[in-house]
Amino acid sequence: MKIGFIGLGKMGYNMVRRLVLDKHEVVVFNRDKSKIDEIAKKGAIPSYSVEELVSKLPQRKVVWLMVPSGKPVDENLDVLLSLLQKDDIVIDGGNSFWRDSQKRAEKSAEKGIHFLDCGTSGGVWGLKNGYCLMYGGEKQAADFVEPIFRSLAPENGYVYCGQSGTGHLVKMVHNGIEYGMMQAYAEGFEILKKSPYNINLTKVADAWQYGSVVRSWLLELTVNAFKEDPDLEKLEDYVQDSGEGRWTVQTAMDFEVPAHVITASLYTRFQSRQEESFAMKVLAALRNQFGGHAVKTKE
Amino acid sequence: MKIGFIGLGKMGYNMVRRLVLDKHEVVVFNRDKSKIDEIAKKGAIPSYSVEELVSKLPQRKVVWLMVPSGKPVDENLDVLLSLLQKDDIVIDGGNSFWRDSQKRAEKSAEKGIHFLDCGTSGGVWGLKNGYCLMYGGEKQAADFVEPIFRSLAPENGYVYCGQSGTGHLVKMVHNGIEYGMMQAYAEGFEILKKSPYNINLTKVADAWQYGSVVRSWLLELTVNAFKEDPDLEKLEDYVQDSGEGRWTVQTAMDFEVPAHVITASLYTRFQSRQEESFAMKVLAALRNQFGGHAVKTKE
Amino acid sequence: MKIGFIGLGKMGYNMVRRLVLDKHEVVVFNRDKSKIDEIAKKGAIPSYSVEELVSKLPQRKVVWLMVPSGKPVDENLDVLLSLLQKDDIVIDGGNSFWRDSQKRAEKSAEKGIHFLDCGTSGGVWGLKNGYCLMYGGEKQAADFVEPIFRSLAPENGYVYCGQSGTGHLVKMVHNGIEYGMMQAYAEGFEILKKSPYNINLTKVADAWQYGSVVRSWLLELTVNAFKEDPDLEKLEDYVQDSGEGRWTVQTAMDFEVPAHVITASLYTRFQSRQEESFAMKVLAALRNQFGGHAVKTKE
Amino acid sequence: MKIGFIGLGKMGYNMVRRLVLDKHEVVVFNRDKSKIDEIAKKGAIPSYSVEELVSKLPQRKVVWLMVPSGKPVDENLDVLLSLLQKDDIVIDGGNSFWRDSQKRAEKSAEKGIHFLDCGTSGGVWGLKNGYCLMYGGEKQAADFVEPIFRSLAPENGYVYCGQSGTGHLVKMVHNGIEYGMMQAYAEGFEILKKSPYNINLTKVADAWQYGSVVRSWLLELTVNAFKEDPDLEKLEDYVQDSGEGRWTVQTAMDFEVPAHVITASLYTRFQSRQEESFAMKVLAALRNQFGGHAVKTKE
Repeated sequence: MKIGFIGLGKMGYNMVRRLVLDKHEVVVFNRDKSKIDEIAKKGAIPSYSVEELVSKLPQRKVVWLMVPSGKPVDENLDVLLSLLQKDDIVIDGGNSFWRDSQKRAEKSAEKGIHFLDCGTSGGVWGLKNGYCLMYGGEKQAADFVEPIFRSLAPENGYVYCGQSGTGHLVKMVHNGIEYGMMQAYAEGFEILKKSPYNINLTKVADAWQYGSVVRSWLLELTVNAFKEDPDLEKLEDYVQDSGEGRWTVQTAMDFEVPAHVITASLYTRFQSRQEESFAMKVLAALRNQFGGHAVKTKE
Repeated sequence: MKIGFIGLGKMGYNMVRRLVLDKHEVVVFNRDKSKIDEIAKKGAIPSYSVEELVSKLPQRKVVWLMVPSGKPVDENLDVLLSLLQKDDIVIDGGNSFWRDSQKRAEKSAEKGIHFLDCGTSGGVWGLKNGYCLMYGGEKQAADFVEPIFRSLAPENGYVYCGQSGTGHLVKMVHNGIEYGMMQAYAEGFEILKKSPYNINLTKVADAWQYGSVVRSWLLELTVNAFKEDPDLEKLEDYVQDSGEGRWTVQTAMDFEVPAHVITASLYTRFQSRQEESFAMKVLAALRNQFGGHAVKTKE
Repeated sequence: MKIGFIGLGKMGYNMVRRLVLDKHEVVVFNRDKSKIDEIAKKGAIPSYSVEELVSKLPQRKVVWLMVPSGKPVDENLDVLLSLLQKDDIVIDGGNSFWRDSQKRAEKSAEKGIHFLDCGTSGGVWGLKNGYCLMYGGEKQAADFVEPIFRSLAPENGYVYCGQSGTGHLVKMVHNGIEYGMMQAYAEGFEILKKSPYNINLTKVADAWQYGSVVRSWLLELTVNAFKEDPDLEKLEDYVQDSGEGRWTVQTAMDFEVPAHVITASLYTRFQSRQEESFAMKVLAALRNQFGGHAVKTKE
Repeated sequence: MKIGFIGLGKMGYNMVRRLVLDKHEVVVFNRDKSKIDEIAKKGAIPSYSVEELVSKLPQRKVVWLMVPSGKPVDENLDVLLSLLQKDDIVIDGGNSFWRDSQKRAEKSAEKGIHFLDCGTSGGVWGLKNGYCLMYGGEKQAADFVEPIFRSLAPENGYVYCGQSGTGHLVKMVHNGIEYGMMQAYAEGFEILKKSPYNINLTKVADAWQYGSVVRSWLLELTVNAFKEDPDLEKLEDYVQDSGEGRWTVQTAMDFEVPAHVITASLYTRFQSRQEESFAMKVLAALRNQFGGHAVKTKE
């Protein structure tokens, strides 16, 4: 089918390629013009404004948004709502907070426009493997777009989650789980690394891929990483977090779920980025106060 | 090759079957006689005492122990050390604490006997899929037994981890990671379950298997579980822990690794088994004391 | 000085009494009329509407709000903003989220009215011991009200924290710390309780009050609680949480502080209120799937 | 009364002084001779070997051990057991693991000698304020030594906890609680510190001492620390842990207590001492693998 696609970043660019390879007509727009021209050579239909993009779509227009969460989504949505008509469909395929998506769906519904929230997982491997898609919103609108979902996802890899917001809710939880799994592996490998036995982590991780309980795609990637740099010597111990981890904690609190592991996994990332911990200085100060324990002082 | 195998429990029984299917001669012994007779019908060679078992093995005898950790391992090992000869090999394939295995290897070495510690992962699926094996001890002894490891494991699914103790250390950490991964999924699904949107967990978990970052064998099992009982209505929220989780925490402390996630995963299991939490009663009492906050009292 | 006071709940009632005892003139209003009449007998000046309350105050009117956080604060503030004049002062002495207080201060400032946010600690003991007060907002407005702060607090027990919002921010963090401290005691006493040695917790807690590192007011209250009910047999292990714990976690995330302990303390309270944990059922299901481990099923 | 005292470290030295000030006769021994001579000038009776020390004691000899936990305790105890007689009393006042104390009591009992385990809290402030003492072992032996406990402790500040091991168990839990309380304060102050409002922590901590729920001795020390160095600029964020935190976690596992907060408090100390976290490098590597997320690499 023919759709519009706004946002040609790391994720969006490859998603458009996958759609084009599967014979969809994709009218693209991106803030940075060079990406438009580049992907046009690979079969996408270029447009140089949202207006132009919308004008090139057939009736019951469908536009996929793949831009950073927050303001960029709102700004693009506002423009689209001014250009689209009743029954048209906007899909936010990015990592938006699900409560924001619910508000955007309400706002769109006031004009009779359908807003679908779609979580997209797969990272840089999506072009080859397909993207796992979880989406929410009005069922009939979601069904209309199904050919797009089918092409983007691997077989069986897309799921309608329910009413507006559930797509991004499911994706957010997916990322929360991802935080916990990654931290579990990380702690395990640190224990092995700190053992005095010089254990070959690459070989261990590799063997675990066959028949063990902890085999997973993340473990496969761990093996790749160890093969490239067995002691991870080239890397800093500095880890970013994106919004989903924090939103998961916030949602866990809203639903009163004791999310010990997901939260701790978020906090270790905070710690990884701290040059100095004031909390730890307070501890050092207190130990010095009550016990006369030596503290490390800066000369 | 021809080996002895002591212990025909849930794990041991299937391991012997897998070995027999792969043309090894396996002399078996088990505390419960009926299991011996049962597996004898499937091609194993029965023996009704450790003495008989040892007597039926050829020179450079190899005995695989697959009994509960702790005392059963020590008792069997003591008998074996009194029967075996220099250069013979004992393999502890169970879930022993790796520091115990190091002591057992030392004790065995005093008689010139090689003690290998082998972690075995795969559970009830091992018969079909193979068992992931991680083993430590003297390399030449381990190499001698390789045909057995090769038959038990799936292709590439066995790894020599290094000196004595490293096999069980690696397996222990494997299980620690398993605790963390399971808890991550569990928290995530609880958040979805407690959302007011009636999300179909089976469908979500199923879709995540295709192209998502969190796909794994444990997720596959989650899908199976949800398919059998979508709301897990038939289950109690009561979770056992075996020794490995606790040993991982202990080892993390020994190596000074901040194992936040693995430890929290162990603690939630403790909580799941508490009928009443004294800690929570202390909190309730304190809130009542300072704030006059209502408490729930037992009538 | 003469001030208005709205809200005669558990906290407010005693605060008014403390003010009256210290010779302030306090015009009170409360949703429930009976409390007004009751406290009028103890020296407060009754009023039966916010309008009446405001009309009874002298120029540069000061009104203290002591109502539940959220909507009650907004509703009362809206009425007050319609009745008060430039340079008048409203103090929110309740447990509001500090970001809400900042918005309320902005809204008040549009009419030239000063909004102070004041955290109030002390619980049911405040009447006797005084309330620890932490307040934020415009310094000159805060200074104008100082006689009130001085009377409510014990000597040295009030602090101007800075610009709008900081009073409630400091109070929120205070409560977050309180969560962590309470949980630390609770865990400790549970360990002692579960030891097989029949340790007398009342005596231990009591002795700790003299010379130990962990002596505190909370410990004093623990002793009181143990003296009333040594095994806390009359209490359920069910613990409420108010907004501050969750806001502290949210703020910790905003400021990227790894608040492991405060967050875990909030989560144990969630757990204390769960009749059944879906997360733990997922764990039980998984253990059954991969290990054939027995599960507790409901008959 | 007259007792022997071995160990004149930071704790022991002041304890002896407190005993001498309270008119006890204290025969002292220490590895470092200079401390013996120094305290002899303050009224202690010097001895330059354990033998000499024992020889200077009257019948029903009592010796207080105040040496580092582990080997030093065992070595001194062995010497004492060879010198003492039936019904004599040894008190281990240091921070020993309570299970070790139980073994030492058994060993001592074989010779009819009473071994008491006494936890001692109070740090460098004990000389002035008294030491909180928690002790276990045979009741009649403990009663015999009560004059010593009474002099060392502030009024009401000593408690007989029960059978052998309970003194050190109670002290261990005391320290576990201390870890959790300290971490709670530390997290709270870090949140305030990282707020953009330039909050004066010294003033806040000081006000909290009067009427707030979180007032405590540790908070008093925090105020002291902030007064000396308001931003703790002179300190490194590097925090030691002694054995008690780890033993508390171990004991919590033995008793199946979900000690979330105490354990997390231990782990943050581990983190404070890590120059580089391998776990965080694993996370960074994984994020790079699946998402192409930028990583910080070392040049």
